[in-house]
Amino acid sequence: MKAEFINPFLEALLEVLSTMAMTNAVAGKPSLKDKGMPEAKGDVSGIIGMASEQTKGSLAITFTEAAILDIASKMLCEKIEVLDSEVADMVGEITNMVCGGAKMRLSEKGYKFDLAIPTMVMGKNHVITHKSKGPVVIIPFKIEAGEFFVEISFE
Amino acid sequence: MKAEFINPFLEALLEVLSTMAMTNAVAGKPSLKDKGMPEAKGDVSGIIGMASEQTKGSLAITFTEAAILDIASKMLCEKIEVLDSEVADMVGEITNMVCGGAKMRLSEKGYKFDLAIPTMVMGKNHVITHKSKGPVVIIPFKIEAGEFFVEISFE
Repeated sequence: MKAEFINPFLEALLEVLSTMAMTNAVAGKPSLKDKGMPEAKGDVSGIIGMASEQTKGSLAITFTEAAILDIASKMLCEKIEVLDSEVADMVGEITNMVCGGAKMRLSEKGYKFDLAIPTMVMGKNHVITHKSKGPVVIIPFKIEAGEFFVEISFE
Repeated sequence: MKAEFINPFLEALLEVLSTMAMTNAVAGKPSLKDKGMPEAKGDVSGIIGMASEQTKGSLAITFTEAAILDIASKMLCEKIEVLDSEVADMVGEITNMVCGGAKMRLSEKGYKFDLAIPTMVMGKNHVITHKSKGPVVIIPFKIEAGEFFVEISFE
């Protein structure tokens, strides 16, 4: 998987968080995820599938509770203290916007795919894996309140 | 969402479990999922996105630990007692085969879509929600060892 394929997702994510939540996230070093050693534990995730006749992929954004409560509070301009279905819905919206932004950027480079319906997972310390024949890239992000992870897989 | 759209997924699921795990699952009554009241808690889920220019959807199969350990034991012909990454991988494979089977059946009826990469979630008592503008249908299944749930959403 090339950087020119991954970067549009990261650019879109930073833009969404900056625009919607006035939050500047800092991306860590991307690495390949080892199937046997899942590192990204989180409390709420947004997952979206991407598919076309030429390619298929999936993206997951996994937030720790501290990180998403801070982002949700900033997005809604009120203190959000409980990870409920409203927060999960917001995670789905963020996931959708990130992939929508990346889809637009990638379509300009000739990569075309359609987006599936985002799915959200709520559960303390869950771990995401991908059933991919290709590599899975994981990128850690930090904001002041905590951390979150983006995992991208494409075949 | 019409029954003619849901049934191919259920038929494919029953066939996969019967062929691969010699397990006869019994489907309960499908119902519409209320966003505020997620009912299907599980310990491992397989999630897959479906997309085309005409439609988009997602499917999640959420297994309780007891149910998937029994299915995994039958699929591998050995006693599986721990929910590990191998079991998660198998859940991804089941999810893929169910949607692959449904895609084939639906394509004969003129519904076309492509499959994304399956994603798996591991975590005690997690809950799945869908960011769908359309209805989400949930179908409970029972096998002797426990229960599992299928959730389908299409727009």
